[in-house]
Amino acid sequence: MKKSIITVSREFGSGGRTIGRIVADKLGYKFYDDEIIDRVVKESGLSREIVERYDEYATHRNSLLYTLAVNSMGDGVHGLSFANQVQIAQATVIKQVADEGNCVIIGRGADYILRDRKDCFNVFVRADMASKVKRVEELYGKTQQKTEDRIKDKDTKRKVFYRSFALREWGDIANYNLVLDSGVIGIDKCAEIICDIVQSTGN
Amino acid sequence: MKKSIITVSREFGSGGRTIGRIVADKLGYKFYDDEIIDRVVKESGLSREIVERYDEYATHRNSLLYTLAVNSMGDGVHGLSFANQVQIAQATVIKQVADEGNCVIIGRGADYILRDRKDCFNVFVRADMASKVKRVEELYGKTQQKTEDRIKDKDTKRKVFYRSFALREWGDIANYNLVLDSGVIGIDKCAEIICDIVQSTGN
Repeated sequence: MKKSIITVSREFGSGGRTIGRIVADKLGYKFYDDEIIDRVVKESGLSREIVERYDEYATHRNSLLYTLAVNSMGDGVHGLSFANQVQIAQATVIKQVADEGNCVIIGRGADYILRDRKDCFNVFVRADMASKVKRVEELYGKTQQKTEDRIKDKDTKRKVFYRSFALREWGDIANYNLVLDSGVIGIDKCAEIICDIVQSTGN
Repeated sequence: MKKSIITVSREFGSGGRTIGRIVADKLGYKFYDDEIIDRVVKESGLSREIVERYDEYATHRNSLLYTLAVNSMGDGVHGLSFANQVQIAQATVIKQVADEGNCVIIGRGADYILRDRKDCFNVFVRADMASKVKRVEELYGKTQQKTEDRIKDKDTKRKVFYRSFALREWGDIANYNLVLDSGVIGIDKCAEIICDIVQSTGN
């Protein structure tokens, strides 16, 4: 079956975003990364500040699963935190863009949110720490925090965010149709492989 | 750097062995699956029966790590079980064939045994359960045990075997340079992608 939706989960610094962008350009697919934020702001009525604050960010206490479990005796929606409102609005927008078809979606647990769709191809991009440190410092420069710690922090946040609404784990091999080590394979080759597979899997 | 060794770890029924065979043929690499058994028999002095019994099989009690930990006060080799002797002989043979270069090695924790080599490309092949059931029944027929349980049992054994000597987990995304879902991508395409990457990564 034709894969009209490509989700790209990625370790921070692995180049997953760039790979997704190249794939979208090559295939003529729409590209959604921060574009998700724009759309959530537009459709949810929440402020940009709030949406940006909780984009791919959750804690145990504002976990959507946790909230729904705790509130399961009530109406389940009333009094949701901003974090939960952003999560729900984001999931709605991700389902909308998937319905519109032919798109690449970066992060935000899209592989889980769209898990029942057969036209979804789920990619995870990883790399060795040295390659990620090099890439992060080249792209974003150094900060006071050691780059390796910064990468670990960011990935831990992604893991916690995913866990806050998904009944499975971020980075678990079973979630993905393709995992690429961009450090060894290279950014352009990774993009080429994804395009090749998507173009070869039915029409 | 040229990847002259390709290790293929695989879920039972995913077609990893077949993919490895096609890759070896296409690249003109040597292929090692049961060939490892032949060589262990030849070089270890152990009987074929013993080597086959413990090929990719271990329990907690005959774990090499466990044995070495328990025996760490003694000479550490004397009185090793047959299971441990097979594990050690297998690791020795895997290092030998890696030294000889240009080869594809199926399973047996080769990715871990060869973890310090930069010329090693580590692949994991997985698939959804329905595809694996179909493949196993086509290739090996049905048995009294439900095919799905048979697949789960076999993979659990591989996991336990890996854990018996490796300080990391079988199927952990961090161990592999490439993970392929053969159910979605297809056997031939998987082989093509591996060849493509290996041919593109330096000479």
